[in-house]
Amino acid sequence: MKKLFFLPLVLSGFLFGQDYKSDSVAMRKIADHIMTKGEGYNDLYQLTKQVGHRLSGSEGYSKAVKWAEAKLKEAGADRVWLQPVKVPVWVRGEESLQTKTGNGTWQSIPMLSLGNSEGTNGKVVEAEVIVVRDFDEFDKLTDAQIKGKIVLFNYPMKQELIETGEAYGDAGRYRYGTASLVAKRGGRAVLVRSISTAPDDVPHTGAMSYDAAYPKIPAVAIGPKTADELQRLSAKQKIYAKLVSNCGMRDDQDSFSVIGEIAGTENGVIVVGGHLDSWDVGEGAQDDGAGVVQSIEVLRLFKQTGLKNKHTIRAVLFANEENGTRGGKAYADYVAKSSERHVFAIESDTGGYSPRGFGLNMDDAKIKQVQSWQPLFVPYGVYRIEKGYAGADINPLQKLNVPLAGLQPDSQRYFDLHHSHSDVFEAVNRRELLLGATVMAQLIYLIDNYWK
Amino acid sequence: MKKLFFLPLVLSGFLFGQDYKSDSVAMRKIADHIMTKGEGYNDLYQLTKQVGHRLSGSEGYSKAVKWAEAKLKEAGADRVWLQPVKVPVWVRGEESLQTKTGNGTWQSIPMLSLGNSEGTNGKVVEAEVIVVRDFDEFDKLTDAQIKGKIVLFNYPMKQELIETGEAYGDAGRYRYGTASLVAKRGGRAVLVRSISTAPDDVPHTGAMSYDAAYPKIPAVAIGPKTADELQRLSAKQKIYAKLVSNCGMRDDQDSFSVIGEIAGTENGVIVVGGHLDSWDVGEGAQDDGAGVVQSIEVLRLFKQTGLKNKHTIRAVLFANEENGTRGGKAYADYVAKSSERHVFAIESDTGGYSPRGFGLNMDDAKIKQVQSWQPLFVPYGVYRIEKGYAGADINPLQKLNVPLAGLQPDSQRYFDLHHSHSDVFEAVNRRELLLGATVMAQLIYLIDNYWK
Repeated sequence: MKKLFFLPLVLSGFLFGQDYKSDSVAMRKIADHIMTKGEGYNDLYQLTKQVGHRLSGSEGYSKAVKWAEAKLKEAGADRVWLQPVKVPVWVRGEESLQTKTGNGTWQSIPMLSLGNSEGTNGKVVEAEVIVVRDFDEFDKLTDAQIKGKIVLFNYPMKQELIETGEAYGDAGRYRYGTASLVAKRGGRAVLVRSISTAPDDVPHTGAMSYDAAYPKIPAVAIGPKTADELQRLSAKQKIYAKLVSNCGMRDDQDSFSVIGEIAGTENGVIVVGGHLDSWDVGEGAQDDGAGVVQSIEVLRLFKQTGLKNKHTIRAVLFANEENGTRGGKAYADYVAKSSERHVFAIESDTGGYSPRGFGLNMDDAKIKQVQSWQPLFVPYGVYRIEKGYAGADINPLQKLNVPLAGLQPDSQRYFDLHHSHSDVFEAVNRRELLLGATVMAQLIYLIDNYWK
Repeated sequence: MKKLFFLPLVLSGFLFGQDYKSDSVAMRKIADHIMTKGEGYNDLYQLTKQVGHRLSGSEGYSKAVKWAEAKLKEAGADRVWLQPVKVPVWVRGEESLQTKTGNGTWQSIPMLSLGNSEGTNGKVVEAEVIVVRDFDEFDKLTDAQIKGKIVLFNYPMKQELIETGEAYGDAGRYRYGTASLVAKRGGRAVLVRSISTAPDDVPHTGAMSYDAAYPKIPAVAIGPKTADELQRLSAKQKIYAKLVSNCGMRDDQDSFSVIGEIAGTENGVIVVGGHLDSWDVGEGAQDDGAGVVQSIEVLRLFKQTGLKNKHTIRAVLFANEENGTRGGKAYADYVAKSSERHVFAIESDTGGYSPRGFGLNMDDAKIKQVQSWQPLFVPYGVYRIEKGYAGADINPLQKLNVPLAGLQPDSQRYFDLHHSHSDVFEAVNRRELLLGATVMAQLIYLIDNYWK
């Protein structure tokens, strides 16, 4: 194995004329510093336990902005600023869902209205539930079978996909777009099986969207176990549901992304970021408190170790990733209008788990160069360096030709808790979190040295 | 990155004449089956919640033997048998530790006597505590400073080591051998900082050993936070401790390893194993309930999918790994006397975390061949295939020239909970556990096909 990695190491040493030994030593120092003195875990404790969840437009988000501003200053940023972002506001309010079989009694079941969805305005929507597995089964229903009913899509994540992000993309279609499909055919509400890998009944929220051509019917996530149970019961008897909810969109609000930076000795900016907002349940610990504190950790590393970055290292804590990505768009708009040259941007938004790779969205020559560094990263668990998606917040920078990367942590556990009450501080491991920050700092170190 | 892996794939295709495409398809089928139909997570629930912890000689271990025997039959083993093993018996009993500063009051602190240690026979041992960081500081103490005292070794795990197993080996010296060092110089008891990566104060037990030349003084693990606090206080004032414990060795008992197998179409045995015993705190979930249920899962996989193994696939659930490794020794003794030919043995005993590699203890030609399969494993997260230690239970097979391998899962979280109250079912993730079983089954599939 060592030989397999040694070959490209020597080869690329020739190709790129790098001093691998000194790079390796510097990367070791970065790891030593963060793994022993890193403060990201304590920072995350504050963000999750003292601030809590922080959906765009909420009081929690305002607290998060204040916390992040102070934290970036404390971490040693030369300059901290708030970037104005107009954000959409969605509120949940009181909500409940009950089901019963034909001759049974009403049972409350775990539920969460989907983000951006409209509720019942506090009124009871009661109807028969039609259960389908997927779009194929839905398409086979007649309009008469759907009209006036509530449709449950019980489409599970594909557990056989080893990278759970792929299964999320697949199952996400059922959360995002089914409300209008059901409304188009006269249905009164849609229930979707939560996008979850967990063997439990916890509901997971997340963004959905309406087709403006049809009525905005309620859209609700239920737990996987309840979804399976309703499917099983529906084969034998009629099922009814009673939904009361108060969620809906409110007026846009003025909000902010929070930015802190350490000036470099030369021109050019390197961005490291995550998103500061979260859904309105749990504590937004893995999604994306982890990315926030890792980004701050990278800044702190450069400050505390005196690494003398050539480029400005900038931590951008984006507003509104969850239900609008307005923070990412606003930042790209700012960059387009500014005279700043962006050398590189990396995002951490798939959890603070043990890192395995980087997804690269940049030209092939740059991809090859980053891949040539793979042997340097293997001791830190990063072996997979491939062309790929970088992250929702930095993606708008693509049109400005900024080379982009996304941290790829181990994906096995993320969708057990993503967008749910389970996404709390206790689900984050200190070493995993800091190791993610370490490999981002290491990659930034290399790029700061070798890219103009 | 793909190119880097593609090169050795093609190369080794030439070298070993394998049909990689059909192997890849078979490995995919193994993964599909285990990730969707695997029962290991439910099995682990039973083993941890219905059986619980199971130290050698305890009632829990007897229950575990019955559970494992029934479970292997249920998994479809052609033959299930109990292998007699005479095991050492250590019992904990009631225990407590209090500390106080010179003018303070007694405070109870979290503690666990170390496994195999002798206690105070229910009497109070009260003495001043001398705190040292490491052997160097201990060696600088005079005998007069040690005599009649309790010595605390506050040696932390090296958090900067990315593979935590290395830090465990380093810190383990302080747990295993310090009691007799202290006794030799007239000390009354030894306290050791728990070998832990966790940012908490949970004590971790584990095996220690006495040098028969010196009195068997008590040896106790305390939490990392308390250890640091005592170190801090000791710089300013005297500290006293009051220990009462009842632990100690009892007579050896008759016990069993549990073995189940599926006969192959040809001669030869392949072993997959973990250890059935655990420490007497927590639930022995990651250590090594995970290895137990993964081994059973591999057997079930071959049975349910009808893979038609050439060699006998044998799950060995070893007795007494934690405080004697008598199960592993007994199995090797059995193999030495039997006419069975052992083709390969693999062990899972470092947790049911997301797999990253295999450690190989076999001749260089075989190592090269297994390394040639690396590209087939990368989609399942296994990229690190190196010469290395395989596992404590199968290690005695080395002298019989059996090729050995150890599953290497991600190591970031294991020592947060290892040998402590925190090692419970809830700390195990379903997908990670099943993915570990998957890659072991895949490796066994390849070896079953290509090795004689």
